[in-house]
Amino acid sequence: MIPMVSIVGAGPGDPELLTLKAARRLTSADIILYDSLVGDDIVTGLPETARVIDVGKRPDGNRTSQDTINRRMIDGAKRGHAIVRLKGGDPTIFGRGGEEAEALAQAGVPFEFVPGVSSAVAGPQTMGIPLTHREHASHVTIITGHEDPTKEESALNWEALAANIQSGGTLVILMGVGRVTENIAALVTNGVQPSTSVAITERCTLPGEFSITGTLDSIETRIHETGVRPPAVMIVGNVVDVGTKVQGLLGNTPAQGTPTPLISKEVSLTE
Amino acid sequence: MIPMVSIVGAGPGDPELLTLKAARRLTSADIILYDSLVGDDIVTGLPETARVIDVGKRPDGNRTSQDTINRRMIDGAKRGHAIVRLKGGDPTIFGRGGEEAEALAQAGVPFEFVPGVSSAVAGPQTMGIPLTHREHASHVTIITGHEDPTKEESALNWEALAANIQSGGTLVILMGVGRVTENIAALVTNGVQPSTSVAITERCTLPGEFSITGTLDSIETRIHETGVRPPAVMIVGNVVDVGTKVQGLLGNTPAQGTPTPLISKEVSLTE
Repeated sequence: MIPMVSIVGAGPGDPELLTLKAARRLTSADIILYDSLVGDDIVTGLPETARVIDVGKRPDGNRTSQDTINRRMIDGAKRGHAIVRLKGGDPTIFGRGGEEAEALAQAGVPFEFVPGVSSAVAGPQTMGIPLTHREHASHVTIITGHEDPTKEESALNWEALAANIQSGGTLVILMGVGRVTENIAALVTNGVQPSTSVAITERCTLPGEFSITGTLDSIETRIHETGVRPPAVMIVGNVVDVGTKVQGLLGNTPAQGTPTPLISKEVSLTE
Repeated sequence: MIPMVSIVGAGPGDPELLTLKAARRLTSADIILYDSLVGDDIVTGLPETARVIDVGKRPDGNRTSQDTINRRMIDGAKRGHAIVRLKGGDPTIFGRGGEEAEALAQAGVPFEFVPGVSSAVAGPQTMGIPLTHREHASHVTIITGHEDPTKEESALNWEALAANIQSGGTLVILMGVGRVTENIAALVTNGVQPSTSVAITERCTLPGEFSITGTLDSIETRIHETGVRPPAVMIVGNVVDVGTKVQGLLGNTPAQGTPTPLISKEVSLTE
């Protein structure tokens, strides 16, 4: 058997949003290395047949270094073990899956990616918000918002990001609550209307999930009023209004400042 | 029971990339309405307990109109049937899921989105290409390329899209092979280097999948040499080189002009 590593996306948190392939890889794994962004219920349900290792944090509270994670994967695979590297969301959307793939290939260890549902995709949907829409959004851009946009070395071109929104694009900001002030300022400075709609969902697809909506100039107040905490998914653009519209038509409470049940929770086929 | 509709993503084509939730919704569905972009093996495997309707095309070869699809969902739900609206990839990334949600809400029919793995995410990964990378790509933008960029009413701001690539972003173009000449011209005219790397994968995650790589100024020739046909996923940016690098390190044939097996096919745990 060829030793190999599967770099697997666990999806946004709900175990039901694992793919069949991810579930199968987990079932046949000898060793599972998982991140802190993998949903608790997924971790609890990992098969007892595998050695399960939390590489999100170490006993001393610090994160396991990337080198240590890489070495564990390579050593395990070379000993003939089936390794699953389990990551929250999709492994190649801000998941360092690409870097780990390089380290594996460098060591001669074959790997595969098993794609997952990113919270950038699932988060908006729990609020009834589509990422694109023929009348409202012709494209979607996904960034992480934890970089400081005022730093000169910021890799993000906020002028281009702002132009994308102004021309009808959707912007999804992952990890953006911590730097929401700077991110909003960077958009508004570059010409995005302060009245542009924004939605935020915390713990999307997980128990305790909740969402708020507002505009670029009101969302910070809403965050403070409601105590939204990271990690959360923030959506900027006209598609937010589609979500508000459909929630309203269905008689759901608009997500304005207080935790509200979301569409998929209110009318589940399984309940 | 509340009548409802699940708008479900089928993923890129491989039935294994359905989510557990999607599979469960299909199993309990009374009526399944599916699109032409849903993978053949998924359609073949749909449960016999449901009435399965192909709304991708009609017997006369034309597409079923959006109004007809909406009416079928609404009528079915109001009769108390569990409806699954099954779409290729993710239902809200260029899948008209948002429009159908609006039509359902307008008719008072509750719905849910069940997110899926978009081919925009899975396609690059079959070539070993991550969508983002700390050293190579700080964000990713997804567009469809079947719009004519020379038209004045084009909703895409190619200047901003080009600036995104120049500042280290990844651009994923769905449905872009038909208008590849116009799309490449739009990027290069707006300042993207003609030497920027490009990869294309046709039929990603399906039997017969294959991929090619090149640069903005060579990819058209490669498309003609290899006969890549729509639907295909095109990736523009430095992350393409990460995929080429890891394929090379693992001794795989670089995807240059001829169909090549991809990483995930060569070293599958299940074979």
